[in-house]
Amino acid sequence: MNGATRQLPGRADHAAVRRANLAVAVRALRAGERSRAQLAADTSLTKATVSSLVTELAGRGLVHTARPTTTAVDAAPAPNASNARAGAVGRPGQPVELATGRVLAIGVELNVDYLCGVVLDLGGRERVLTRTAFDVPAGVDATADEVARLVTELADRALADSAFATANDPAVLAGVGVAAPGLVDGTRGTVRVAPNLRWRDVPLHDLLADRLAGHVLPWLPGESRPWDDRLLVDNEATLATLAEFAGDGGPDERDLVLVTGGVGVGGGLVVDGRLVRGSGGFAGEVGHLAVAPDGDRCGCGRRGCWETLCGLGALLDLAAPPNDPVHRHDLDLDERLDLLLDRARNGDERTLTAFDRVGRALGHGASMLVNLTNPRVLVLGGYFARLGEFLRPVVESELAARVVAPDAGGVRVTLSRLGLAAAATGAAHAVLAPVLDDPTLVPPLTGQASTAAQSPTSAVPETPTLAEEIG
Amino acid sequence: MNGATRQLPGRADHAAVRRANLAVAVRALRAGERSRAQLAADTSLTKATVSSLVTELAGRGLVHTARPTTTAVDAAPAPNASNARAGAVGRPGQPVELATGRVLAIGVELNVDYLCGVVLDLGGRERVLTRTAFDVPAGVDATADEVARLVTELADRALADSAFATANDPAVLAGVGVAAPGLVDGTRGTVRVAPNLRWRDVPLHDLLADRLAGHVLPWLPGESRPWDDRLLVDNEATLATLAEFAGDGGPDERDLVLVTGGVGVGGGLVVDGRLVRGSGGFAGEVGHLAVAPDGDRCGCGRRGCWETLCGLGALLDLAAPPNDPVHRHDLDLDERLDLLLDRARNGDERTLTAFDRVGRALGHGASMLVNLTNPRVLVLGGYFARLGEFLRPVVESELAARVVAPDAGGVRVTLSRLGLAAAATGAAHAVLAPVLDDPTLVPPLTGQASTAAQSPTSAVPETPTLAEEIG
Ligand SMILES: [Zn+2]
Ligand SMILES: [Zn+2]
Repeated sequence: MNGATRQLPGRADHAAVRRANLAVAVRALRAGERSRAQLAADTSLTKATVSSLVTELAGRGLVHTARPTTTAVDAAPAPNASNARAGAVGRPGQPVELATGRVLAIGVELNVDYLCGVVLDLGGRERVLTRTAFDVPAGVDATADEVARLVTELADRALADSAFATANDPAVLAGVGVAAPGLVDGTRGTVRVAPNLRWRDVPLHDLLADRLAGHVLPWLPGESRPWDDRLLVDNEATLATLAEFAGDGGPDERDLVLVTGGVGVGGGLVVDGRLVRGSGGFAGEVGHLAVAPDGDRCGCGRRGCWETLCGLGALLDLAAPPNDPVHRHDLDLDERLDLLLDRARNGDERTLTAFDRVGRALGHGASMLVNLTNPRVLVLGGYFARLGEFLRPVVESELAARVVAPDAGGVRVTLSRLGLAAAATGAAHAVLAPVLDDPTLVPPLTGQASTAAQSPTSAVPETPTLAEEIG
Repeated sequence: MNGATRQLPGRADHAAVRRANLAVAVRALRAGERSRAQLAADTSLTKATVSSLVTELAGRGLVHTARPTTTAVDAAPAPNASNARAGAVGRPGQPVELATGRVLAIGVELNVDYLCGVVLDLGGRERVLTRTAFDVPAGVDATADEVARLVTELADRALADSAFATANDPAVLAGVGVAAPGLVDGTRGTVRVAPNLRWRDVPLHDLLADRLAGHVLPWLPGESRPWDDRLLVDNEATLATLAEFAGDGGPDERDLVLVTGGVGVGGGLVVDGRLVRGSGGFAGEVGHLAVAPDGDRCGCGRRGCWETLCGLGALLDLAAPPNDPVHRHDLDLDERLDLLLDRARNGDERTLTAFDRVGRALGHGASMLVNLTNPRVLVLGGYFARLGEFLRPVVESELAARVVAPDAGGVRVTLSRLGLAAAATGAAHAVLAPVLDDPTLVPPLTGQASTAAQSPTSAVPETPTLAEEIG
């Protein structure tokens, strides 16, 4: 009797039904190629409907319906893809496959000392991944310049790579998502407060829109200027949560809490399959939960915030004296965490005690989130995931002690596998989602392209997968 | 660009569209009678569709389409209603009105020392309200007997009152919702843990189903036994939250947090228009948030739980010595709170200090909920609402200090107006919701009833509104 939780049903019309069915078909095909008959079985739609949907999707270049017969290959991980044949109409028994390169989405995370960029394709697969050192707090304008430069570079690389482009029907960009470590007014794309960047009221959306307006990007057509429609700025933990949620798609992800550790501690909630953003977009501000009323002073000016107990600074101070190399900012964080992991595995008392104290504080705060939302999964992200072999058992025992529901409400503690790319990946997912919800946002292929699709000898040179990490 | 938060679209078919449109029409009519033309304008549906919907709703007895011409009146607050004419077909310009008495819903709250019962009609209006002293912790079976007795009494009174009944087409019960103060497994309707009742693993749903099976209740037809389909048991704070949310229907209610004070402290979340239940139904367990790590021992066995700081016990202990009448359990709680209010208004130092300390603790915990979910509104319920004139300003200043988002994320602090009936009211809303989501659950009127509807002289005796409170 869960009807009480349903939303007020909206008006439904035939066009909306059609869009919803196209979306269902695209999401089903994201799991892998299948015949029309399989697609009908998977979606509970009739075969006639599925045929009509596949024809429309092919006309928009979103699926291809015949196996490749040429050397033209898509650079996507699925080696059989041939976007050059996107418009071809295959036999009914032949597999239908998502033309993943037709739509791309760019995600960028800016953080204290780096920029991370990701390109996802329509299938949600990573096409490009870069991470570069950058001193964001040094200047707002310089950061906006550099993010705009990174976006155009990512777009160029992804498009060269997509092997989809024809003269008339290039791959299109669903949008650009930008993740920032702070409170973001999502409506305007303004970073209201970002203590670690020393930013306050930075109109990041507008700064980027001005810069991107000067570049010829292959945006998806929008109702207004594409850099208004298609450029999203949001909080990094919120977007990292979206990335966790957009991952494997299992039922566990419909109710999860992410807690991610860095200099700050961020959080995000997914409830019943929906990311909780809050009325002003400020949900998930867990780093400053007043966990220890008489605790240490936090960067925000308050006392005893959760991140003073289990942020990276607290861990490092507990684990090693000031002159220890784990404090050296010029070393990559992964290396410094490896040092600590080595010591802990060798039984070093101070390191183990530090892990235990941080784990207890992490579990204490996490128990509040679990008591409040009763998630199926608590995902530990950022440095918490890296130290998961030591932190997870402590967190689990704190949850067992502190959560009121029987068996801690059934929550399972897992470790994120997205590493430092989580927020950028989530930012790309965020701008891809509207296309998945409404595939008719993608324009139909032009006549020339349809011809091209029937002439598979218009070969596109084979290119390697560009997924790579620049340290 | 909120598309990222949308759910995966489900398969839509014509029957689903029809149900959704019927639901939209019923919800629009809950706001008041209107002509078909107004209804079309309000719902963005075509006039032809609206006409067809109204005809179907009339055929199910859910609307009447002509003004009454007889003395038969509905007992609902809307004095023009005439359910005896439910099937009549009026002229296009005539108003369409919800036949609110066609479907009724019963809600019961059992708590430490009372049972509260509510009957709502299809319009969400209160038809009956009772509250009686009962010693619930004294016995599980005795409580189940008494709740079953109360349910049948409420059904009898509401049906006698509804003025809808004809021999063939009586008013029907959407269901019975039961609110309990503890952790409830909503799937099985089992109360897992209810410390204040000293209950553990009480199969309340099954105990009530056994007892109600012996009564001839006019249940809405169900796919299985009606007492499985239509009998819901859930946590009292969750259901109280649903009642707040089901209230006026303004946009504020789409993102709210309820914190309700009694012996325990309960909470509930509404996010983006949806009640958060949690993966196991255990969401909103805020009373045992570990707010003061080294605080007093709580009834749950832990230390420093939020309710040890701002539950009713904490307030009374702070406010008055043990021999003070505010501690007398034989006095009604409202009277005891009035004593405290009088003292505070007269400037009594001890009372004011107690209010201040409780308010600060309330604000401290509430700031965690606000940081996490960024609601539009924080609703104070239970005794917090009663003492709102003193507690609210303190809570507001704590939120201003402790919430990280600018202006406390824009949250507004309001006082519940539902008093002690909140949970029972929410329980009734919960079982009414499936009918609002799918009006086709209500069977069509039989032929005889249609005839009756065209013979409005089959008058039903006028009865007074039965809304009343038994102290
Ligand atoms: Zn802080
Ligand atoms: Zn407790």
